[in-house]
Amino acid sequence: MTAVTGTFRNGVNTETMFATLDLIKAQPELARFQFRASNRWIDGAYNRSTIKGFYAAGGEDASRSEAFELDAGEPAILLGTDTGANPAEYLLHALAACLTTSIVYVAAARKVELTSVESTLTGDMDVRGALGVDDEPRNGFQQIRVALQVTGNAPAEKLREVVERGKARSAVYDMVTNGVPVAVEVATD
Amino acid sequence: MTAVTGTFRNGVNTETMFATLDLIKAQPELARFQFRASNRWIDGAYNRSTIKGFYAAGGEDASRSEAFELDAGEPAILLGTDTGANPAEYLLHALAACLTTSIVYVAAARKVELTSVESTLTGDMDVRGALGVDDEPRNGFQQIRVALQVTGNAPAEKLREVVERGKARSAVYDMVTNGVPVAVEVATD
Repeated sequence: MTAVTGTFRNGVNTETMFATLDLIKAQPELARFQFRASNRWIDGAYNRSTIKGFYAAGGEDASRSEAFELDAGEPAILLGTDTGANPAEYLLHALAACLTTSIVYVAAARKVELTSVESTLTGDMDVRGALGVDDEPRNGFQQIRVALQVTGNAPAEKLREVVERGKARSAVYDMVTNGVPVAVEVATD
Repeated sequence: MTAVTGTFRNGVNTETMFATLDLIKAQPELARFQFRASNRWIDGAYNRSTIKGFYAAGGEDASRSEAFELDAGEPAILLGTDTGANPAEYLLHALAACLTTSIVYVAAARKVELTSVESTLTGDMDVRGALGVDDEPRNGFQQIRVALQVTGNAPAEKLREVVERGKARSAVYDMVTNGVPVAVEVATD
């Protein structure tokens, strides 16, 4: 038990975590990762992404035996049949999941034992943009609000520092707030 | 059969689509939507979002009987146990799904019958950023490449126009390329 509680904090193996950080500091080329998703249209607003392989630490990862399959859809009011969460809701999930994991990892590194991390995200959209009815409203969310609740064995001030650092290191928070260059190549045969 | 083939194109009810567009043109206040996701930390990199309710067209939507539950995780090399796609992969899925649906809807409006829409998305990340090893690389993807293949009963030029218009109207493409203001509120009790 001592070994386990000594190595794992918040479900994160901190020994492995610090060894990984040391390795990447020593060999920065190992930090080059590539993630992928393949999507296929099924019908109407129904489409599915398959996610499995990725490149990490100098080679193609082979640790996943099964692919993750993610179904997207739209509710009836947006002309779908609710075959899955819609793409904008998936973006909210991506942001929530990344903030949560970043906070949990930072807490593990800083010896803070968390008891809960919960968040509710809301995104406001004027669908005239995406539906092409009006050029003025943007297509995406005008803003996203994140209500985060974090509890653990540390004073409120320390927990807030952990959240701030988690936010400052979150990959998806960076992408959603700052944007990413996207290059689209189209083939028609 | 005539009625069905006359009304549905690419699995989209075009009669309903044009009626929706007319309604929103006449009453722009109906275009105010709000989507939501609630996330809860489970252990380590494992967390889950629950997505159900949303606000649309002047009221809270009640059409969904079940919530969508989305599990996130990280592979072993990023200190998780692969409990789900990781947050950055979910962002790729959100982008792929939104581009696909936008293309399908635009094609339906423009009388183009599609036979396939497939895409592969890749995102390059230097994980020194998100892991806090180095301040220089950004946390998120440096860039995302989308390889889209679209086929249907229209000349290549027309298919490319449909893709361009779909891209120009996609909510997630807008958000990922341009960014969105995100406000985070933190509670610690």
